[in-house]
Amino acid sequence: MRQHQTRFTIPTHGKGLVEITREVADWLDQTDIETGLVTLLCRHTSASLLINENAASAVPRDTLRWLERIAPEGPHYEHDDEGPDDMPAHLRSVLTGASLSVPVGEGRLLLGTWQGIFLAEHRARPHRREIVAHVIGD
Amino acid sequence: MRQHQTRFTIPTHGKGLVEITREVADWLDQTDIETGLVTLLCRHTSASLLINENAASAVPRDTLRWLERIAPEGPHYEHDDEGPDDMPAHLRSVLTGASLSVPVGEGRLLLGTWQGIFLAEHRARPHRREIVAHVIGD
Amino acid sequence: MRQHQTRFTIPTHGKGLVEITREVADWLDQTDIETGLVTLLCRHTSASLLINENAASAVPRDTLRWLERIAPEGPHYEHDDEGPDDMPAHLRSVLTGASLSVPVGEGRLLLGTWQGIFLAEHRARPHRREIVAHVIGD
Repeated sequence: MRQHQTRFTIPTHGKGLVEITREVADWLDQTDIETGLVTLLCRHTSASLLINENAASAVPRDTLRWLERIAPEGPHYEHDDEGPDDMPAHLRSVLTGASLSVPVGEGRLLLGTWQGIFLAEHRARPHRREIVAHVIGD
Repeated sequence: MRQHQTRFTIPTHGKGLVEITREVADWLDQTDIETGLVTLLCRHTSASLLINENAASAVPRDTLRWLERIAPEGPHYEHDDEGPDDMPAHLRSVLTGASLSVPVGEGRLLLGTWQGIFLAEHRARPHRREIVAHVIGD
Repeated sequence: MRQHQTRFTIPTHGKGLVEITREVADWLDQTDIETGLVTLLCRHTSASLLINENAASAVPRDTLRWLERIAPEGPHYEHDDEGPDDMPAHLRSVLTGASLSVPVGEGRLLLGTWQGIFLAEHRARPHRREIVAHVIGD
């Protein structure tokens, strides 16, 4: 049994979903792990990770609009030091989650046909987001 | 340290929560892992996994109704190629999540007394859903 | 490769977020694992785990108020045997999730600078909550 770890730095362009499946799959290839478990952690509280459909480009857009409705900006937050998009960004991160895990088989992420891994940027301005990746297996 | 992997195919009957704790526990028994970590991944973007109370049958029903309120069907989605239940199904999957992990001790899932693992079907029509299970341990 | 497991019992004082990063980090220190993966499971269906900003104390308060808006108490639940805060507590647990994973490097949780791990208590009255922690690594 072996393990490997890396960090991805993903530039974002303000609110949006950035697919990172390819980055994770390419790194996994280099580790030569055939069977195992990949775990990702987004090291931020105003960006997060999620798995979503990656075929239709309207799905990320609808997902983003839904996150904006469900955790809207507004004057009703106590925490607003960093601007009106800050507290909603924390809430959208809590809702979608900071970590996720994907089993590995035959050297590949065992995602479904239509599943992609996305970094969700919840702040209005561009950021550089860091994701830790860990894999354990054989 | 050893690891095992399997896939469960779970038939669903349209929207609903299907408890799969028994399937996972029975498979775990066969692996003879005493201490370790089980990780499950739902390989779909309109079905998901969650842990919820499994004693009162009203809890899954209330959970389903809440998911319908919080990510409702409606004409406001850009993505509607596969029908009005498609985009809400993606949103409910994002909210509840595709993967979850449960530590194993004394050969058993270390769930709490009232916790069950559920596959959540978010589409209106029946489907066959695939879940990958991975366990690593001793 | 080695693994360790423990259980934390966390007292809560009714609805609120209780940071447990220190408890997890102190236990991790004792295991002497340098590189690996920590997974936590909250063994309850009306309390849950999440990662959130741990610097500004207003963030947990806003998060709690948002959870109260998004899964409100009310007469519209079928399941109300244990009081009006019971079903909303299940919903808030489903939304935030029972399990989470954090990679370990150089003997430390690889959380971001502003990230803390929180137990979220969703019931109105104080409880003692049990969290299982598992680490695997070298």
